[in-house]
Amino acid sequence: MNQPNDLRSTLEPFLAACAAAIGAPHVLTDPHDTAPYLTDWRRRYQGAARAVLCPATTDEVAALVKLAVEHRVAIVPQGGNTGLAGGATPDTGGREAVLSLRRLNRVREIDPHNNTITVEAGVILADVQARAADAGRLFPLSLAAEGSCTIGGNLATNAGGTGVLRYGTTRELCLGVEVVTPQGDVWDGLRGLRKDNTGYDLRDLYIGAEGTLGIITAAVMKLHPQPAARVTALAALGSAHAALDFLSLAQRFAGPLLTGFELMSDFCLQLVGRHFPQLRYPFDGRHAQIVLLELSDSESEEHARALFERLMETALEAGLVADAVVAESLAQSQAFWNLREHIPLAQAQEGLNVKHDIGVPISRIGHFIEETDAAIAAAVPGARMVTFGHLGDGNLHYNVQAPEGGDAKAFLAENESTLNRIVYDSVNRHRGTISAEHGLGQLKIDEAAHYKSAVELQLMRALKQALDPLNLMNPGKVLR
Amino acid sequence: MNQPNDLRSTLEPFLAACAAAIGAPHVLTDPHDTAPYLTDWRRRYQGAARAVLCPATTDEVAALVKLAVEHRVAIVPQGGNTGLAGGATPDTGGREAVLSLRRLNRVREIDPHNNTITVEAGVILADVQARAADAGRLFPLSLAAEGSCTIGGNLATNAGGTGVLRYGTTRELCLGVEVVTPQGDVWDGLRGLRKDNTGYDLRDLYIGAEGTLGIITAAVMKLHPQPAARVTALAALGSAHAALDFLSLAQRFAGPLLTGFELMSDFCLQLVGRHFPQLRYPFDGRHAQIVLLELSDSESEEHARALFERLMETALEAGLVADAVVAESLAQSQAFWNLREHIPLAQAQEGLNVKHDIGVPISRIGHFIEETDAAIAAAVPGARMVTFGHLGDGNLHYNVQAPEGGDAKAFLAENESTLNRIVYDSVNRHRGTISAEHGLGQLKIDEAAHYKSAVELQLMRALKQALDPLNLMNPGKVLR
Repeated sequence: MNQPNDLRSTLEPFLAACAAAIGAPHVLTDPHDTAPYLTDWRRRYQGAARAVLCPATTDEVAALVKLAVEHRVAIVPQGGNTGLAGGATPDTGGREAVLSLRRLNRVREIDPHNNTITVEAGVILADVQARAADAGRLFPLSLAAEGSCTIGGNLATNAGGTGVLRYGTTRELCLGVEVVTPQGDVWDGLRGLRKDNTGYDLRDLYIGAEGTLGIITAAVMKLHPQPAARVTALAALGSAHAALDFLSLAQRFAGPLLTGFELMSDFCLQLVGRHFPQLRYPFDGRHAQIVLLELSDSESEEHARALFERLMETALEAGLVADAVVAESLAQSQAFWNLREHIPLAQAQEGLNVKHDIGVPISRIGHFIEETDAAIAAAVPGARMVTFGHLGDGNLHYNVQAPEGGDAKAFLAENESTLNRIVYDSVNRHRGTISAEHGLGQLKIDEAAHYKSAVELQLMRALKQALDPLNLMNPGKVLR
Repeated sequence: MNQPNDLRSTLEPFLAACAAAIGAPHVLTDPHDTAPYLTDWRRRYQGAARAVLCPATTDEVAALVKLAVEHRVAIVPQGGNTGLAGGATPDTGGREAVLSLRRLNRVREIDPHNNTITVEAGVILADVQARAADAGRLFPLSLAAEGSCTIGGNLATNAGGTGVLRYGTTRELCLGVEVVTPQGDVWDGLRGLRKDNTGYDLRDLYIGAEGTLGIITAAVMKLHPQPAARVTALAALGSAHAALDFLSLAQRFAGPLLTGFELMSDFCLQLVGRHFPQLRYPFDGRHAQIVLLELSDSESEEHARALFERLMETALEAGLVADAVVAESLAQSQAFWNLREHIPLAQAQEGLNVKHDIGVPISRIGHFIEETDAAIAAAVPGARMVTFGHLGDGNLHYNVQAPEGGDAKAFLAENESTLNRIVYDSVNRHRGTISAEHGLGQLKIDEAAHYKSAVELQLMRALKQALDPLNLMNPGKVLR
């Protein structure tokens, strides 16, 4: 790292002012220091920036934004840099400044009676979970990147994950936010209230806006009681249509105790078996679809298991389910989740693929898969469908693997845009979404503009213009 | 009613154009016809209007708004006219037009597999509940006015009610909306998706905006599985502080099965006993606080009752609860709810009172009651506190009854503003809200401006200005 004095004397005026505001060691300009902030998690985007700014407090963030306004410097807010749509990567021009929230990493308050935790934007998701658990509470947001993503990034992208069926998305887990506006003012909306009807819902406007309307610096998040036990089960079914009927049945039996309902096509499990042979396939024969169910029970493991047994018996008798297995231990529950979680890893082992994070109304999932599979088979022969996801949320990772044995890179280069068009057109016909949980970032900005109505785009632009008239907050993300 | 031809020839140009757009019989100008639309439910406000417009479709709403823009006529949207803050009553100038959504009353779709119902704004809340029940589903929004309020009004005010603890407010029950913008465009945001991260959250901006940013004409609402049984219980406690510990215990035992947790002070039940002696007081002695609990169980009545018995046993042993009774029949469950529901009626019988719909963090409720009771006792001797509400949501109806036997009207005229200031200042110190579930309307617009920060008011004004630059949508409501 450069010496502060050297740095300050050689810096352009904006960075010199930033160094004065937050301390020179926290204004990174050395390429070695800035590199990790300039490329995204999936390494799709390589940006450049005049600096990476690392404030430690809300007031420092506000001071930096005021300087950015004064010097007309665009700001790219960044949390754990684990986004999947390039939303936290600056453009290639080198004129933007990355503003990292990671040093805002205090848990400000935990209030078990109110079931809330107040955290700064840079707190790692796993740390929020851990602090909640220490207080005997559950913070249910959970996703693959939880060891490195930040709660601020989760809020900016309205992250989903595996608990949405019961607990909702990040939006539904947030009661209040603190925001630095594009003018450098601090809005203290840190309310820990379940009900508050006193004006416009600013909170939800900032959540999911990917840093384009202001910078979330802290939030009050909801906690839940810790369940006494979590138990999983697997069910084998003949089709995605059957899985829908099975979902209705499971919800009738288990109500809000049902916290997971994940679909995995047979090919997903074949891939897992090929690349992770140590993970045991749990059924004797093959089945078109496997569903992983999770119950979070307030009573006991025995109660959850008995509930599962009754559900499976009814489903088997009704012919909805061909086979089923209920986990008999925590280890077996974990083993079932492992199968699900190894699908993306098996996909990576298998080679290049095109990913889609789509959502449709839950009732349309069977039709969506049938129609889109058929359209892809006709247009791109040999494409292999890797279909899995959060069926209970209507959210599929509807991924396409190149044909076995061929040149995957050439195949994808030739077919990616065709595949995207087929998938997104089908999503659009079923009134779905092209980004269920990953956001738009820079990756899907044009696709979103293609499918959204003129009225919606106009409303979004009016809000952006009203709140950020200088277009300094993460420009080129979400909308142009 | 006037004859269409007469009407059209005598009307000012705006109303003539409206009559051409939606049919003259649906443009009400006769005072006999318009009267029910011009005063609010609580008869606090008496407005005037140049007409009441009754369109039947979204396109008709859009056509009327375009005419309003052309003729610069302000629009006051109205649903069932059951609001408690005057948000649907026009001002006294007689230049505004009331736009009633009641004829938009179709259920457009019900999708049990997706657990959604798509309804127009004018559908009565009880009808939404009934249609959901016909499809074997629960629409959990429930409140006193459900027989006459409309889902559009519920959305405009983000209504709360008795199911919030488990199912959330109207906001949390809504997946998508259709809106006529202040320019008369139709935004079709009728998405039935649990997850959708493709841009700004317009939906939540319109929810709770009380018709000041546009007119919600239809919505996709979430449904839930029907519980197999609902059982209630009453517990007697020594203080509101004990009720908080009891809430934590109940949530640990019952998790998401706990759907109601209502607090009633002893004086509330004394008033009920005085004015409705047929309602039996369920305990032998008197207790400072009574809590009504409700379980919604996916298994059976027996299971719910057994869970309650275990909970009460633990709470009694821990000394948290002094006495408890679990309903042994549906009739007894209903009798317990009756006690709670008769509190406002008993208050009305007792005479004039000042109502507050406040919310604080749940953990602060005990302190809030203690401090505010003491401040009121000191400043307004003789005032009687009628404290009850949705403790599980942190939402109290913290009402003040005039002293026994005196001139209630004179007492309130003298003390209402003092009482409001004491209550709202205390709410503010505890980081609470002056309107938890009723909205601002015209009743609390100045109070809200008094307590909100300059930054928040500025953000709200920026949004209003961006979306409704001519200020034609329900002016003088929510913010000036």
